[in-house]
Formats: sequence, C-alpha cells, structure tokens
Amino acid sequence: MSDQVKYVLDEERIPRTWYNLMADLPTPPPPVLHPGTLKPVGPDDLAPLFPMSLIMQEVSTERDIEIPGPVRDVYRQWRPSPLYRARRLEKALQTPARIYYKYEGVSPAGSHKPNTAVPQAFYNKEAGIRKISTETGAGQWGSSLAFAGALFGIEVQVFMVRVSFNQKPYRRALMESYGARCVASPSMETNFGRALLAKSPDNNGSLGIAISEAVEVAATNADTNYALGSVLNHVLLHQTVVGQEAIAQMELAGDYPDIVVGCTGGGSNFAGIAFPFIGAQLRGGRKVRVIAIEPAACPSLTRGRYAYDFGDTGHMTPLAKMHTLGSAFMPPGFHAGGLRYHGMAPLVSHVKELGLIEAKAYHQTACFDAGVLFARNEGILPAPEANHAVKGAIDEAMRCKEEGVSRSILFNLCGHGHFDMQAYMDYFAGKLVDQNYDESELAMALAGLPSVPEPA
Amino acid sequence: MSDQVKYVLDEERIPRTWYNLMADLPTPPPPVLHPGTLKPVGPDDLAPLFPMSLIMQEVSTERDIEIPGPVRDVYRQWRPSPLYRARRLEKALQTPARIYYKYEGVSPAGSHKPNTAVPQAFYNKEAGIRKISTETGAGQWGSSLAFAGALFGIEVQVFMVRVSFNQKPYRRALMESYGARCVASPSMETNFGRALLAKSPDNNGSLGIAISEAVEVAATNADTNYALGSVLNHVLLHQTVVGQEAIAQMELAGDYPDIVVGCTGGGSNFAGIAFPFIGAQLRGGRKVRVIAIEPAACPSLTRGRYAYDFGDTGHMTPLAKMHTLGSAFMPPGFHAGGLRYHGMAPLVSHVKELGLIEAKAYHQTACFDAGVLFARNEGILPAPEANHAVKGAIDEAMRCKEEGVSRSILFNLCGHGHFDMQAYMDYFAGKLVDQNYDESELAMALAGLPSVPEPA
Repeated sequence: MSDQVKYVLDEERIPRTWYNLMADLPTPPPPVLHPGTLKPVGPDDLAPLFPMSLIMQEVSTERDIEIPGPVRDVYRQWRPSPLYRARRLEKALQTPARIYYKYEGVSPAGSHKPNTAVPQAFYNKEAGIRKISTETGAGQWGSSLAFAGALFGIEVQVFMVRVSFNQKPYRRALMESYGARCVASPSMETNFGRALLAKSPDNNGSLGIAISEAVEVAATNADTNYALGSVLNHVLLHQTVVGQEAIAQMELAGDYPDIVVGCTGGGSNFAGIAFPFIGAQLRGGRKVRVIAIEPAACPSLTRGRYAYDFGDTGHMTPLAKMHTLGSAFMPPGFHAGGLRYHGMAPLVSHVKELGLIEAKAYHQTACFDAGVLFARNEGILPAPEANHAVKGAIDEAMRCKEEGVSRSILFNLCGHGHFDMQAYMDYFAGKLVDQNYDESELAMALAGLPSVPEPA
Repeated sequence: MSDQVKYVLDEERIPRTWYNLMADLPTPPPPVLHPGTLKPVGPDDLAPLFPMSLIMQEVSTERDIEIPGPVRDVYRQWRPSPLYRARRLEKALQTPARIYYKYEGVSPAGSHKPNTAVPQAFYNKEAGIRKISTETGAGQWGSSLAFAGALFGIEVQVFMVRVSFNQKPYRRALMESYGARCVASPSMETNFGRALLAKSPDNNGSLGIAISEAVEVAATNADTNYALGSVLNHVLLHQTVVGQEAIAQMELAGDYPDIVVGCTGGGSNFAGIAFPFIGAQLRGGRKVRVIAIEPAACPSLTRGRYAYDFGDTGHMTPLAKMHTLGSAFMPPGFHAGGLRYHGMAPLVSHVKELGLIEAKAYHQTACFDAGVLFARNEGILPAPEANHAVKGAIDEAMRCKEEGVSRSILFNLCGHGHFDMQAYMDYFAGKLVDQNYDESELAMALAGLPSVPEPA
C-alpha cells in the first residue's frame, strides 16, 4: 500500500451546520455569572461586546446550527482540510497503531483559527459593526482575525502581548499585511493599559492583560465589538467543522478512532476535533478515548482548580466555571504561546468533569522531539502547540506497540510551524528548557480566585 | 455567485506523466556544450552529477514521461493543488477580466519546489546514491530538497549563499528540521570555497558560487550527486504537473486562459504553468499569450544576451545557450532571492527566441503593492517572487478595464510569503528601494561571456 494516504472530501461535504455539544450533554455546564451580581449573565450583558447572533450561539442548546452561506464560501478556500494516515511515521515507530491526523495548517493563516475568525467577522459585519478589537499571544489568532476582517471589510485592532510583539515581529507583519493594526499590550490606548504602564513601564504583558484592553476598547466604543479566539462556547462551536469532516474522512478510511488527541490552551482546536466524536458517543455511538494534551508549564486541566474565575487579568469579563490556575497566574516562558492561558474553555472543563475526556501534560522538549520526528517522516513541520498533540499521539502509538495491539489514533495537527522557527532554532541549539511553574505562585494565584457561592 | 471559487480535482487526476515541451517544439534548443571541448555533452559527461534516469529526461524528446508511483504517492500529500478564481480581487480592481490563480504554496515547503525535489530524491535513491549536494539562495529550494531527502532517506547538504544564511536563519532551521546540513557559501568545505575565502574572507556569496561548491562536492564523491532546483530541462519537466492540472481545472471552470503569467528566476515555476499551454497551442490548440515576469534588478530575459554561458561562477558546469547577464554579474540586493540568478533556463530562453512567450520586468515595490492588495482580497500572502506574477496579472486585468474587454488571465502563485516577513516589514516601513543594476557592471559581465563558435 502507498505510504501517502490522504482522505479527501468533496467541497460539497464542507459541513452545512456547526455541531453544538450542549445538545447532547447529560447535564448542562454551570452558568456564566455577572461579576457584580453573581447572577447568570443574560444576552443583554454581553451585547456591548458581541453581536446578538453570536450571543445566541453562546447559549444555544440546538444541536445543529446553520453555517451562513458567505462563511461557508470563505471556508471553501481551504476546506475540507485533508486527513492523512501517517504511514511513514507508523513505520518509523514500528507500531501496530493506525495513526491519522487532520491538518488545519492549510488555511491562509496557517492554523485552525480562521474557522472561527471568519464567522465572527461575518456576524459582526452583519450587525453593522465597524471595528473589532482582540488580543493575541503568539499571533495565530490575531493574524486569523486580521485575515477575516480584510475579507469582510472590518477594521481590526489587535492587542499583542508585549513580549511576543517584540519577539515575533513577523506575526505582527502578517497582521499588518492584512491591514490590521497591532499594538503592544499593555498599551497607552486603554485605561487599564495606562494604569499598568504607570506602575511598571516595562510590563511584558500577558494574554489576560491583552484581553482586558481589547474588552475595554469594545465596551467603550459603540461601533466596536470584541472577539475571542478560544474559550467561549461559540468559538468551540465554529471549530467543530474539523471533527465533523474528520468523522466523514475516517469513514472513507474505513476506520474509526479508538483515541482522539488534541492540544489544549484555551481549548478550541481540541474541542473542534473532539466534540463531534464525543457527541456521537453520547448519542449511542462508539466509545472513544479523548485525550487533551497541555503544556506542563501551564497545566490548567491537570493541575488547575475547577472553579469560577475571570477570563482576564483586569477582571472585566464575566465569571466562568473552568479549570483555572488563577487569573493572576503567570506561566513561565515556553514556545507554545498559544497554550499559555490560565484558564480552560468552560465547556472543555465541563466534559472533563463529566469524565468524557482525559488530560495529560508534557514538557516542551519532549514535544519538539516528537514534532521533528513527525516532520522528517510526514513532511509537515508542526507549530509548537501542535507538537503537544503529536507527542500525545506518539505516546499512545508506542503503548500499542508495547501491548501488541493495533488501535486507531486520530489527532488534530492544528497548524504549521513556519512562524515558529526561532523555537526550532532554540531546540536544535539545545537551548530549550523545560521550566516548571512556581508552586507557591500557583498557590497564590489559586488563593486569589473570586469567592462565588455555589449557584442554586 | 459566490466570491470564493475553487476548482478542485480528484486525487486520481494528479497527472500520471510529465509533459515534455521538447516533443512539440518546431526546432530543438541548441545543444549544451562541454566547456573544454565545446562539443555537445553526452550522458556520460553528466554521470558524475546526476542519475542516468534524470540525464535521460534531460535529453528526452518523448512527449509524456511517466511519473513513478512512489513520486506520485508523495505528490498526493498536496496535489492536485487548488486553482482559484480571484473574484474578490476582480471586484477590488473593478475589472471585467477573469483572474485565476494556481496555488502551489500548499506543499509542505510552501512552494512549487517539491514538485521536482521529490522526483530528484527518488531517482537518486533508486540509483543507490547516499547523499545529494545542492545550493540555495533564499532557501525555498534547499528546504524542498531537505524535505524530499528526509522522505527517501537521502542525506542532503545545502550550500546557502552566505548573505542569506546570515539573514534568513529560519529557512536554515527548516532545512535542519528535515535533517539536512546547511552551510554558508563560500565555505571551507570545497577547494573553490577555500580559494574564495582566502582571497576575501568576508565574501557574501552568490548563487553562482554556491552552485560551484555543490557541484564540486558531487563531482569529487562517488556516493554523492548534485541537484539543481531550476534551469535544467528535467527540472522544468517535473514542474509541468502545475500546468497540466491547471488545464483540467480551467476546463472545470468552463474557461480557457487568454493570458498565462508566471514569474521567472531560473524559469521552473513559469515553465511549470506555461509549457503545457504552449504545447497545446503548438499542437493546434488555442493561442495563448504567455508572459514571463522578471525582476528589473536582474532582467535576464529582457536585458540579457542570448548566448552560451556557464551556469555557475566557478565555471564547473557545461555551457548552455540562454538569456544571460553573464556569470560574473552580481545583481543588486532585492527581496525575491529566488529570482536572483544571472541566467534563464535554456528551454525558456529558446521559447522566447521562438516568439512563443513575452517578457516584462518590474521593480520590487510595485510588486509588493500588488502582493498586499492580493493578500487583503484573496487571503493568501504571496512570496516576494510570486508578487511579480501577481503584478503581471493585475496589470493585464487593468488593461482589460481600460479596453473594456473581459479576458481570462491565469497566473501561478508559486509560494506563500510566511518565510519572507522581513521583506514585508521593510515594505511597510518604507524601506524598500527599487535598485537598478549597474549598467557598466552588466556590460563587463557580458563582455566576459565565453567565446563559443556557433555550432554547425
């Protein structure tokens, strides 16, 4: 049999609906709370930030939510994305496992992020919004929203974590190529940013800070909305095109995954591949082991507390129940910037609590080992974030080898690493360090969690 | 009608043969000469550098040359590549033209180069070769051969022009990720390199020098062969998968190009899209205007002499009749490193002489203007090389607007610009300069062309 096995779907098979896991869950996730009243937030509370169509998706329990025509049209540029059988990798590992990967790096921004950036830009345009503000860490999300904004004629302002802004000028240049404006956060453009800079002019920023700034801009300008690249229900919802296509492609392969693996930062690429399989299982389909892989230096799912917390540092967001390291937690520096977030998507946290998924944490060097092995066999160089999923899949494949069983393993290769070559250079130069977070800092951040009585 | 129109071919329609334009030309191109004897080179002269299967392709006049199964298998990772109708760009230009582009940036290396790297690695492996040496300028070719070498288990050594080696560490890191060894040229690893460094230790290198070094390594090691990423007949041949697919996709679109545009450095991506259309015309098909776009700072087709010249600076290669600026010509620095070569593929030069193609030269700033306009409408950020083709297509589209006629324009978008963000940063910072070459240096380089009597 050929070493190169690609499962291609006809364009007509781009999903027509997003899949909403809420419809199939045995219990709903805890409500999102207003930080002032500690009462569940209603659509009106969110209206200053999001168009009503996205707010309705955020709270919807409808199983299938129609993808608007203009969004599906843009999807067609790179969707359906390919699904590959990693036969060369299997041979290199000498494993009886069948390894499949869904490749989202074919989008113009090089990752899965446009799957949600495009509908978010579309719905905002439809609502008459002129401008969207957002945050970005490593830059995958910022460049994806910049891309989507360019297509729908919406102005995009990106608050980029200052340390990344300085270290990753190329990601910034990509956003600017799409016409977006990218500013280092903390910035002088918001009250929150100015206050932080007054206290410490050399503040390096964090994702939590950048979110606060972007939210402030949206909340204080009527023609401006906010967009988030992960965490929220509607963002995870949009990513389900990944898993839905994968189900159809696995069918083409005449196989079904025993194990589904994704990396988790905020949780969106993981949810994108996993939720459709979890939903199928909940509706009586085949049981599948689902494994979330997170960085050991920022391990919200494996070491965080399942508690109500803010999504940002400035405490401008509502409170969501999620696995969190505390909104004040500052993870040590590591290269998978897309996974450096203190919290986890509430819906991913909820399915973890329900026992529907497992979680594992890996240090970065082992993930780069896996990513380079993958590149030399499969030809695609993964993003550092995606290396976590590669490592998770390889570990399961090696377990198959030890146990002498052939299992089918599917993972989401959520993006390519072409913008992350400095990380690979550090890896080859032996400069990567597997830093642990500071236990006492974690304890302090967790001690600072807001006190929220259990809802009735 | 939808703004996003993609023409997708089924995997079964990846070409089964490469198309050899030699079969349809009214006259054959002048022979390649041995630099010592000035007699046409025979297969044996080339045997120290290339496997016999590639040498046979180099001189073949057979129209259709079978693509080996294992090569086609690797092609399936990213082929058939998509062909798009640029409707959003058309709207932005308010042109009646129908603009189509074939997108080769979907390969794992991000450009068209793997189309030939893969068969070159395959044939060398089949011939029992252990190692391939090659040169690279901007790094597109080096990383593509590194990719192909990893897949077929062949060691790859890349001589990278020193100025690029220093300026583009990320391309080098990509080659290393695939397991290749990349050295700055001139290097201490060859006699030619050592001699140059002895004379000037801070020699910045050039493509011509790097070719000499790579050829020397191959010529002096029995287990090592040489590979070139453009210029040669067999390289152009392998790229014809691009144009063959495009013909099928234009058929799907119910259209046929009036104009085909490609950018030209050595000539391979241009030949890849153009030769199948030129061949169809020569066999009685529809006439098509074919336009080669080259950089005004290195204008071999528009300002070079059609004469016998060496392919390299060290004069180790055979003599080929081509449009050349002289092997001693040093083009000024500009960002499309893949187009900075003194010569042009002999076969492209020949079809230019036959009047089958036109050529135009553009300065880089205008090309970046075009590339950014393209990115903001079509979502894909082109490589600086590809920006030349974008500019060529846009100019023809604007002519359609002026003349009030709708023509069908097809161009080859040969790679994405994710490794070229420094160039875009310079562009946005207003730092791009449209340098002209030095006329007296060109005159000197042309005066230094080898004296070759017209063959009988």
